Amino acid sequence: MFIKKLAITDTNYVYHISDLKRSLSMNEGGVSLEILEKHNFDGIIKTTTGQSLFFCNATFKDNMDKMKKRAAIIIPKDVGFIITETGLTKDSVILEAGSGSGGLTCQLAALCKKIYSYDNNEAHIKVVQENCDRMDLRNVVCELKDIKEVDVPEQVDLVVLDLPNCVAGIETAYKSIKPGGYVVFYTPQITQAQDVVTALGSEWRHLRTIELIQRDWEIDEKRLRPKHTMLGHTAFLTITRCFKRPK
Amino acid sequence: MFIKKLAITDTNYVYHISDLKRSLSMNEGGVSLEILEKHNFDGIIKTTTGQSLFFCNATFKDNMDKMKKRAAIIIPKDVGFIITETGLTKDSVILEAGSGSGGLTCQLAALCKKIYSYDNNEAHIKVVQENCDRMDLRNVVCELKDIKEVDVPEQVDLVVLDLPNCVAGIETAYKSIKPGGYVVFYTPQITQAQDVVTALGSEWRHLRTIELIQRDWEIDEKRLRPKHTMLGHTAFLTITRCFKRPK
Amino acid sequence: MFIKKLAITDTNYVYHISDLKRSLSMNEGGVSLEILEKHNFDGIIKTTTGQSLFFCNATFKDNMDKMKKRAAIIIPKDVGFIITETGLTKDSVILEAGSGSGGLTCQLAALCKKIYSYDNNEAHIKVVQENCDRMDLRNVVCELKDIKEVDVPEQVDLVVLDLPNCVAGIETAYKSIKPGGYVVFYTPQITQAQDVVTALGSEWRHLRTIELIQRDWEIDEKRLRPKHTMLGHTAFLTITRCFKRPK
Amino acid sequence: MFIKKLAITDTNYVYHISDLKRSLSMNEGGVSLEILEKHNFDGIIKTTTGQSLFFCNATFKDNMDKMKKRAAIIIPKDVGFIITETGLTKDSVILEAGSGSGGLTCQLAALCKKIYSYDNNEAHIKVVQENCDRMDLRNVVCELKDIKEVDVPEQVDLVVLDLPNCVAGIETAYKSIKPGGYVVFYTPQITQAQDVVTALGSEWRHLRTIELIQRDWEIDEKRLRPKHTMLGHTAFLTITRCFKRPK
Repeated sequence: MFIKKLAITDTNYVYHISDLKRSLSMNEGGVSLEILEKHNFDGIIKTTTGQSLFFCNATFKDNMDKMKKRAAIIIPKDVGFIITETGLTKDSVILEAGSGSGGLTCQLAALCKKIYSYDNNEAHIKVVQENCDRMDLRNVVCELKDIKEVDVPEQVDLVVLDLPNCVAGIETAYKSIKPGGYVVFYTPQITQAQDVVTALGSEWRHLRTIELIQRDWEIDEKRLRPKHTMLGHTAFLTITRCFKRPK
Repeated sequence: MFIKKLAITDTNYVYHISDLKRSLSMNEGGVSLEILEKHNFDGIIKTTTGQSLFFCNATFKDNMDKMKKRAAIIIPKDVGFIITETGLTKDSVILEAGSGSGGLTCQLAALCKKIYSYDNNEAHIKVVQENCDRMDLRNVVCELKDIKEVDVPEQVDLVVLDLPNCVAGIETAYKSIKPGGYVVFYTPQITQAQDVVTALGSEWRHLRTIELIQRDWEIDEKRLRPKHTMLGHTAFLTITRCFKRPK
Repeated sequence: MFIKKLAITDTNYVYHISDLKRSLSMNEGGVSLEILEKHNFDGIIKTTTGQSLFFCNATFKDNMDKMKKRAAIIIPKDVGFIITETGLTKDSVILEAGSGSGGLTCQLAALCKKIYSYDNNEAHIKVVQENCDRMDLRNVVCELKDIKEVDVPEQVDLVVLDLPNCVAGIETAYKSIKPGGYVVFYTPQITQAQDVVTALGSEWRHLRTIELIQRDWEIDEKRLRPKHTMLGHTAFLTITRCFKRPK
Repeated sequence: MFIKKLAITDTNYVYHISDLKRSLSMNEGGVSLEILEKHNFDGIIKTTTGQSLFFCNATFKDNMDKMKKRAAIIIPKDVGFIITETGLTKDSVILEAGSGSGGLTCQLAALCKKIYSYDNNEAHIKVVQENCDRMDLRNVVCELKDIKEVDVPEQVDLVVLDLPNCVAGIETAYKSIKPGGYVVFYTPQITQAQDVVTALGSEWRHLRTIELIQRDWEIDEKRLRPKHTMLGHTAFLTITRCFKRPK
């Protein structure tokens, strides 16, 4: 992991610690490497000015929240829906294009067996690899390739296409998917979802096109109402299943 | 798996096959066990009436969709959000109460390392165990116990509470969670979310209470609009993180 | 008004009374016309079995809720938005096509100066006229005519088009609207809204396409949550303003 | 009206004109009062620099959009719902508290017979009166008074309460409403709606608590998706009907 430890102040401010070979110096005072190592970067440690810092392990989520971003990433509500609506397991193998910044890639890699991730933009591939490295995810194959040229070395359980032209990826999806496997198309425009739905042949069983609207609430002892600012839209998710017959 | 194979007709009707020691007899005609075994329940097989059936492996999702239900289950949009908003990985250990029918239990067990699941209703526990058996999930510890009496044998990464009185579970959640771990409260009523938020002490960093509204679309070449029938509500999800200090 | 009076039982069951020349006979017992007239159909009146009925005037809304329906009607949330988003007043003159069952017609007639309502379906026109008669609305001109043939006798403040092909009505809308007036297109499909938006010329100032999602809540002392059943969709409303230059 | 005329440039920029006794001077050049009066502030008029300005009447909506605001106003979606869900007509008489900036007051005054509007904040009353004056609305009685002291001179068809403590207004609402009339409570917090619902006695027939979520779409030839920014919440509307028995 890139972020290895958290140091939390008494007011719940959280510091991210990536380098375990360095002393700390912050607003709350300093801590020498010797003391940090003596405590194993764990529990409550006093700073030079006598304040308390609480140390604990960073989580995968801490690292996800700080991943490098070059393109817009698929946000948790949509990633989560893809995982559960297609029933992923530790044994699932996934093909994804485009990689974007690797938000979906990293979360799926942390949960599943293997991810093949393709993008035709070199800058994206570089960022995804960097993010996977930072999070010690070794089950990701990430390559610079257009979806039309992808020839994945094994049949996959799930294909996720997040492309400007998802229809262009249907052929590769078909070629790559196990019979009975799932394909998810992530499309910001509803007309892109319509293009996908009308392009799918008879072996594709159209399950559904949905969107998830996330509503955050403002809650305390006196207030109980939805927040005024809200993200109105991310994308439409079209989920189909391919009953590909043998040739 | 309980459902092991799928047999799909030319009109995409899907039969679930659980018993691989039996011949088949259906509207489309029959297939003898001998022939089924010869083809290894795979590919296209002709029935006695000359119709084609396409056989392929059932997926975990096929089994999830047919799991036994005794209580309302947490549906994919909410399960997915819990997984990604707390950044679960293959290494995550989870404590859950109540078990309900095991919808969340099974999906998390398929993705993560271990689930401890508790419910104070014997009928629920029985159904969860049956569902886990049917899906070959061996990393679930499922026990009849009230949340207040739970003493989980290891510190966990995530606690999910789906209880009529979630506040009653905060103490056990606190005791069980790793420092920096996450707790999710699943509450149908918004006032239950408010009760939780106002009951949490200063070591809990309140992240957010949200709800996900799922909108299904009607799509074909002519139609492009949201469906008229819609599930208006499932529950509010309150997600917090506990920076539990050592005593 | 068709429904002239209400009779309310002690358990708040509401009877609608249309005929003030008849005695009443209901589950709660009977009341003679003589007694009804003596009390002027008003206040608390005892029935023959000694139960109390409370009489009061029916409202316009009581009649709206019981109007005859032949086609789907535009529901309050959408009618209301049309009224306020275009700033209707008692002096507003409105052109509407198609009339449907007259739901919009009647509400606007009750508030504004004059409504010209057109439909190319004779059955619709008949129902609208009947509804207007029942509600004593005398400021509605309702004619069997295709929108393309409409030649409204005065320039209007608002045009509302609720047609399978709204684009076909743009020319008549343009011809009929006062400079600076508003046009609303009511379209169930989002692609119909897109067709409208892309068909409008430079004199049309595109304001917005919106949809209103109505969420009903379940509330009592213990429950506080959105209802489970929900109407997912009615229509998209596209609201534009026409700055029509003189020829 | 305060804004009497609009002058629209060739690029559809709209100027508001309030004073018809003044020449114009703007980016597009000037127009003398003599020429403006000769054309009656109507149609296409050339400026001193030879550019075209198109003049037409301002609408009530133009004035509503520019009304003075001191407090947050109830926005069109909610005002519209109040109008149609209670079936207002030209004959309706309404009692409103608090007045706020008069957004609801002015729209209802433009459509209905009479509005009694009360607020216990002198600054609010002043703004409402100014707004009514600017829009020539003479059917508004606007007074500085706490809702508990209101004694309205006639029974009303609708009471709208937009107060920090709506429950405090129930007694006055009851006293003022015609039997069978409607009362709407506008409450930002859902718990305020709950307080209202649980405070209403048996003569109140609870119709519903709802919220309207407005979603704006981004539409052109290529794009067809909900906008990313969205207003997450305004208020909950509780609509009840009072079958007030005579004493």
